[in-house]
Amino acid sequence: MRVLGVDPGLTRCGVGVVEGVAGRPLTMLGVGVVRTSADADLGSRLVGIERGVEAWLDEYRPELVAVERVFSQHNVRTVMGTAQASAVAMLCAARRGIPVALHTPSEVKAAVTGSGRADKAQVGAMVTRLLRLDAPPRPADAADALALAICHIWRAPAVNRLQQAHAAAKASRPSSNVPVRKVPR
Amino acid sequence: MRVLGVDPGLTRCGVGVVEGVAGRPLTMLGVGVVRTSADADLGSRLVGIERGVEAWLDEYRPELVAVERVFSQHNVRTVMGTAQASAVAMLCAARRGIPVALHTPSEVKAAVTGSGRADKAQVGAMVTRLLRLDAPPRPADAADALALAICHIWRAPAVNRLQQAHAAAKASRPSSNVPVRKVPR
Repeated sequence: MRVLGVDPGLTRCGVGVVEGVAGRPLTMLGVGVVRTSADADLGSRLVGIERGVEAWLDEYRPELVAVERVFSQHNVRTVMGTAQASAVAMLCAARRGIPVALHTPSEVKAAVTGSGRADKAQVGAMVTRLLRLDAPPRPADAADALALAICHIWRAPAVNRLQQAHAAAKASRPSSNVPVRKVPR
Repeated sequence: MRVLGVDPGLTRCGVGVVEGVAGRPLTMLGVGVVRTSADADLGSRLVGIERGVEAWLDEYRPELVAVERVFSQHNVRTVMGTAQASAVAMLCAARRGIPVALHTPSEVKAAVTGSGRADKAQVGAMVTRLLRLDAPPRPADAADALALAICHIWRAPAVNRLQQAHAAAKASRPSSNVPVRKVPR
């Protein structure tokens, strides 16, 4: 499974491609940052993000794009830009028919470090170890993008099993929307 | 001046095209809503918004797109979807080189009703009167999109004068970044 992780942001949008399956060593195929200038107007910045993400999709052809789920509770000042950059990344993937998965920051931290409250340094250190890199990817946004991709690859089997169980349960029971009518013989 | 107003939203994205200049009667060229299903996944919904906005740009060829500026303070639950839909609208415009202007909800209300705290009914009533329509456009998102376009057309001369004054002031004074060095004769 090849996953492009995207840590969305207008100034620095982290991108990282990881290949592998849960339970086996993973391989990093590429990592980087799509940057746009804070001096540019918002529309141009979004076009910059689109071009950057398109270039990564063209080069690596991922099967899935994992994007950080943005919450409005945190960092009120920057959350709008983060939401807008994430929208562009999701749009680029969905337009090509590539599935998009969202993971919360604490899911990502828990997946790679064992703790949902891990700090940036811990995430960077675990990403470095898991992908057998020489040093933590810089900036932190690039490491976070790799962590998102790793999180997705590791969580995917559990998520798939859950979805299959739901579908099976749905198929085996009568729909609650259809009234059961007792017809006398 | 022909302006496409966009009241961003994932479920209902209001769109309205107004033509005219400040101080003269305005004309509505079109109004509508781009809808996406709440059952669809987020990526598909963003693709739906993109297709809808592209169709309006193709049909009306506006000179400018006016989008509501999204604040994170309000409606915390829906603000993420609003920010994401607005990003797609801005991206569609910027990709074609069409300038994007952002106006806050209170700027729009003040422009069309005289009060920044006007309610939806007052905005709808004034839009109906200003564009000489038979009835307020429904749903409210459509009326809000027209109000955004009207707001932009009316505010544009003042905004332009401000920008020109800034540019003139900047050109006439020495840059504060360059130290003034006194050379003895």
